[in-house]
Amino acid sequence: MSAFLPKDPDFAARVRVSFARQGVMALIGARLSRVEPGLVEIELPYRADLCQQHGFFHAGITSTIADSAGGYAAFSLFPADASVLTTEFKINLLAPAEGELLRAVGRVVKPGRTLTVCEVEVLALKAGAARPCAKLLQTLMCLEGRPDMPLTG
Amino acid sequence: MSAFLPKDPDFAARVRVSFARQGVMALIGARLSRVEPGLVEIELPYRADLCQQHGFFHAGITSTIADSAGGYAAFSLFPADASVLTTEFKINLLAPAEGELLRAVGRVVKPGRTLTVCEVEVLALKAGAARPCAKLLQTLMCLEGRPDMPLTG
Amino acid sequence: MSAFLPKDPDFAARVRVSFARQGVMALIGARLSRVEPGLVEIELPYRADLCQQHGFFHAGITSTIADSAGGYAAFSLFPADASVLTTEFKINLLAPAEGELLRAVGRVVKPGRTLTVCEVEVLALKAGAARPCAKLLQTLMCLEGRPDMPLTG
Amino acid sequence: MSAFLPKDPDFAARVRVSFARQGVMALIGARLSRVEPGLVEIELPYRADLCQQHGFFHAGITSTIADSAGGYAAFSLFPADASVLTTEFKINLLAPAEGELLRAVGRVVKPGRTLTVCEVEVLALKAGAARPCAKLLQTLMCLEGRPDMPLTG
Repeated sequence: MSAFLPKDPDFAARVRVSFARQGVMALIGARLSRVEPGLVEIELPYRADLCQQHGFFHAGITSTIADSAGGYAAFSLFPADASVLTTEFKINLLAPAEGELLRAVGRVVKPGRTLTVCEVEVLALKAGAARPCAKLLQTLMCLEGRPDMPLTG
Repeated sequence: MSAFLPKDPDFAARVRVSFARQGVMALIGARLSRVEPGLVEIELPYRADLCQQHGFFHAGITSTIADSAGGYAAFSLFPADASVLTTEFKINLLAPAEGELLRAVGRVVKPGRTLTVCEVEVLALKAGAARPCAKLLQTLMCLEGRPDMPLTG
Repeated sequence: MSAFLPKDPDFAARVRVSFARQGVMALIGARLSRVEPGLVEIELPYRADLCQQHGFFHAGITSTIADSAGGYAAFSLFPADASVLTTEFKINLLAPAEGELLRAVGRVVKPGRTLTVCEVEVLALKAGAARPCAKLLQTLMCLEGRPDMPLTG
Repeated sequence: MSAFLPKDPDFAARVRVSFARQGVMALIGARLSRVEPGLVEIELPYRADLCQQHGFFHAGITSTIADSAGGYAAFSLFPADASVLTTEFKINLLAPAEGELLRAVGRVVKPGRTLTVCEVEVLALKAGAARPCAKLLQTLMCLEGRPDMPLTG
């Protein structure tokens, strides 16, 4: 169970709508698999066109789902009228990202009015086993009064 | 002019062949625009399906070309029988990655037998102006005796 | 309990002797408070001359004990004839480092023959409460065949 | 020459006064050797009690002067009534920090109203030669309306 209380009761819908608007997630075939206050999980099935020269997921693709998992974990705790911006992240690649599926689990470490710090663990699932393949530490900015998407009517 | 002397005179061909084998570069439409000893440049034209929810290049996609630019800058100085592995990187997103084109310029900061440190600057080109949008600091590992690709005959 | 099996049964003594040889630890008044396989804890009591201009522990001092906590966590799993070198780290300062005591808890995330990745949490103890004030993600190198100190006889 | 125009014409005095209030700088013997808009340099002569177990400057001490050099480079561009806070940094240790003197040169990469990004190069001076031994990439926060020190009178 999460220790965080969301400011926006509709946080999960807000995360899902925003995720659906990230064109790159559709391009690579990533899906949102879990949304809780301060915790977001993204899964990415293997495809050869997501890989680097040795056939492992490219570090940039691992970073792409990890950055979004952490970003949406932060966003889930933001007020309804705010949007999220990654200011920086650092990723350690612990093992080759190989397997049928990558799973990025983003968690808020420290929420803040302006800056939120998250960490993300990326697991590589292969033949039934889940192995950590990357760890990310990230700073997100909350832009209040600038909703993630224009209201339509 | 680069200050580095490559160990492999065929370094540029080796970089180009390896780049061509990174499936993800074709997926996103990235191209290798410059290869010198210790310096590699990758360009990425704008596409809506490379973006996040606000229409800017996704930080993970920026990271993808930056990671490869730095990785190949390191690789250009490796011996012919070695392959390259990113062990970690850190990226600061300086400004929204918006424009017609992203250009990642990777440079070797400190070559080493086992570890090489690179930095990468990413520029966003918009209406004729180039603006820095990201900066990356990265550690690469040299795997000697493990050529980047299998020899075929 | 730690999940790691040390290669050197005398790991704790080796860590303690090496720590005692870090001149800077005596200068700042840091002490080794816990040594287990893959986990090392360092404590630092408050002193005005460890602070920045607002009276909080300086980020560099927080980094100093965090770097050593992670470094010795890695070192505890190394073979007896090896020494340790930090290749890089990243620290997020989560809250002002204020209080009577800082405690840095370093843990091995991923041991490796050449590179080991650690994470370190730094807690600020104030009026009986412990609050996370920093988080560090770090890469260490194992230099085999180069013992941490010269053998004397 | 610096490309930055300081908001506060008295920036250099403001940096010097704040530096003098960092207790840790006196403890380790660091001195401010250069202050320009967006550029600050700190020097640190060798002392055995600043070292790790192999007799090199401890990575945390290298970080301490690097963090302050970057922090004051950012601070030099802040308005007069603002203070500075490091939110995170990443340091790559390029070579052993050995020699008579360390010199940290901090430069603003991207100034901002809330967040400023700096990079710092640390040189080790030994027998007349200066060799890069560390590189740092850092995010600073500007706290407006919270002057660095209380006004006295």
